[in-house]
Amino acid sequence: MSTTYSMLGGEGPDSYREHSKYQGALVIAAKENINEVISTKLDIDTSSNLINIADFGCSSGPNTFNAVQIIIDAVELKYKGESNLKDKEFQVFFNDSSNNDFNTLFKTLPPARKYFATGVPGSFFGRVLPRDSLHLGVSSYSLHFISKIPNGIKDRNSSAWNEEIHCSGSSEVVEKLYFEQYKNDVGGFLNARAQEFVSGGLLLLLGSCRLNGNQFFESVEGMMVDYIGSSLNELAKQGIIDQQKLDAFKLPIYATQADDLKQIIEDNGSFTIEAFEKITHGKGEYPLDTNYLTLAFKASLGGSIAALFGQDAMEKTYELVREKTQEMLPQLAKAKPGMQFLIVLRKN
Amino acid sequence: MSTTYSMLGGEGPDSYREHSKYQGALVIAAKENINEVISTKLDIDTSSNLINIADFGCSSGPNTFNAVQIIIDAVELKYKGESNLKDKEFQVFFNDSSNNDFNTLFKTLPPARKYFATGVPGSFFGRVLPRDSLHLGVSSYSLHFISKIPNGIKDRNSSAWNEEIHCSGSSEVVEKLYFEQYKNDVGGFLNARAQEFVSGGLLLLLGSCRLNGNQFFESVEGMMVDYIGSSLNELAKQGIIDQQKLDAFKLPIYATQADDLKQIIEDNGSFTIEAFEKITHGKGEYPLDTNYLTLAFKASLGGSIAALFGQDAMEKTYELVREKTQEMLPQLAKAKPGMQFLIVLRKN
Repeated sequence: MSTTYSMLGGEGPDSYREHSKYQGALVIAAKENINEVISTKLDIDTSSNLINIADFGCSSGPNTFNAVQIIIDAVELKYKGESNLKDKEFQVFFNDSSNNDFNTLFKTLPPARKYFATGVPGSFFGRVLPRDSLHLGVSSYSLHFISKIPNGIKDRNSSAWNEEIHCSGSSEVVEKLYFEQYKNDVGGFLNARAQEFVSGGLLLLLGSCRLNGNQFFESVEGMMVDYIGSSLNELAKQGIIDQQKLDAFKLPIYATQADDLKQIIEDNGSFTIEAFEKITHGKGEYPLDTNYLTLAFKASLGGSIAALFGQDAMEKTYELVREKTQEMLPQLAKAKPGMQFLIVLRKN
Repeated sequence: MSTTYSMLGGEGPDSYREHSKYQGALVIAAKENINEVISTKLDIDTSSNLINIADFGCSSGPNTFNAVQIIIDAVELKYKGESNLKDKEFQVFFNDSSNNDFNTLFKTLPPARKYFATGVPGSFFGRVLPRDSLHLGVSSYSLHFISKIPNGIKDRNSSAWNEEIHCSGSSEVVEKLYFEQYKNDVGGFLNARAQEFVSGGLLLLLGSCRLNGNQFFESVEGMMVDYIGSSLNELAKQGIIDQQKLDAFKLPIYATQADDLKQIIEDNGSFTIEAFEKITHGKGEYPLDTNYLTLAFKASLGGSIAALFGQDAMEKTYELVREKTQEMLPQLAKAKPGMQFLIVLRKN
């Protein structure tokens, strides 16, 4: 959510829109679970004719449109018998940082939508909506972002210096610092949402995490980010990108263990965990396809790399990433699986 | 509000942001009147801790930020003595068509703002917000837009054919058709707002219109658009732009007479007119300055011209406009003044 890290905007061939099918598949796979939990656990004032829904970290579409529609369908299903269902109106708040491509989001809104669409710019680690205004929320593949890189991580002279571009799990010191930041940020996220949600409202968290005991560097995601890091290192050695800039380039991402995330939510105490489920689906693991993997990680991280090192260096980086991915397919095949999750929290 | 007519986005030297100081001056000049009317006429449930404010036709800033702040300040002034003022939160809905540059709007939001900012894409001739959700609204220099060009106006073979690019008032047939469309659109705007506003809420309309009895072609604005039209005609004759495209290029703008607008609001009946005032201020009339006038009308109309005829033709057009403006300064000096207005409507 910091200014240099956002998904590639627009509708072009390399955009996040085009390469976020992996992320989008999860909410579709979780549809029945979402229906069920909204049907049984949503506990809001049914006399109100306005239902407010938010997506925290919506990016520029189209996954957010699916997520929102699945929620609206589930609410309509729940209230099907009620006489005032036809009077109910839905307002959807699409939230992301202010450097998100909201123009593309707005231009590609589903024309047949039956809700009032609004965009909400701002970091979801703080308040972005009024008190007691929200009935349902979703955040999909967003809570692995941390709000800042911990002190020392970028500093070659510090004992916390991280030579990698992310927290791979290979260094205990680095892992601990990232985890502290993550705990703090998820707490901030939950505190902000706790103020925004009405009591009885539901917050759905979707994303991926590590299975307990696994390290991030053992997963496909971890390996792919490693290839990006080593590609950038090669370019720095060739003098194509600046080594000092690269030293300061650290992805604000932390892949939590399932149990750690559960503990953070319980310690926060604002929400009750109604579901904490592993969702298995066809696209749950990345396909072992060089082109697919390269483009997926270009769409999600290429924008940040281009912003810092320029478009040319970014393209060169991904040429190297493609080569490495191709070469490492046997290792990628042995990667440890992650966990795709649906977590449902009810505001106390 | 149709897709080809939007203000020049971005923050560049030709952008609407840079050349909308004229429009922005009105709300500042009207500040005392706005304070007064909010103090005496706003009649909403004071126990509610959320106050929703919308700007219909906000463009990409910064005028909208001033308008919104003036409204918030006035509300805080009104409730200064009340014990729950500190608990009140403001949510601001910035509305414009979905091709508006919301990215720039969001990136330039005042950092010290004390309200939750949201963008609302969609035509304000229809509903864009939930029922009974809005306490205060403003629409500044927006209601002269019409939602479509009346039938026949673009058709050389029709008796309603308009050889000009706008409704200058020189043809009675054309004038009547534009006025019918305007009446219909303002009615649609008011009907939509009537559903969105709570009873007792206030809608502020700011803009310019003709004084009763004056024709648009007698005003500076009318003359400037005439010069743009004749410049385009010259380019068409030289074969630089396509004559057929030019025939179809009609600005969706109508400059109403003050009394006609008042009558439309009264006939609609959803709102009570609490104020209908001529606001006089330093920037109330355009300065007789070729550069200023050319750039002001480039910022507001250049985007539409570039979208249809290309960037080069747009630049050529404004070279001619600049020459004509310079040449016609004596005529511009004799132009009939328009009326800058503040209209305050209270939802019945």
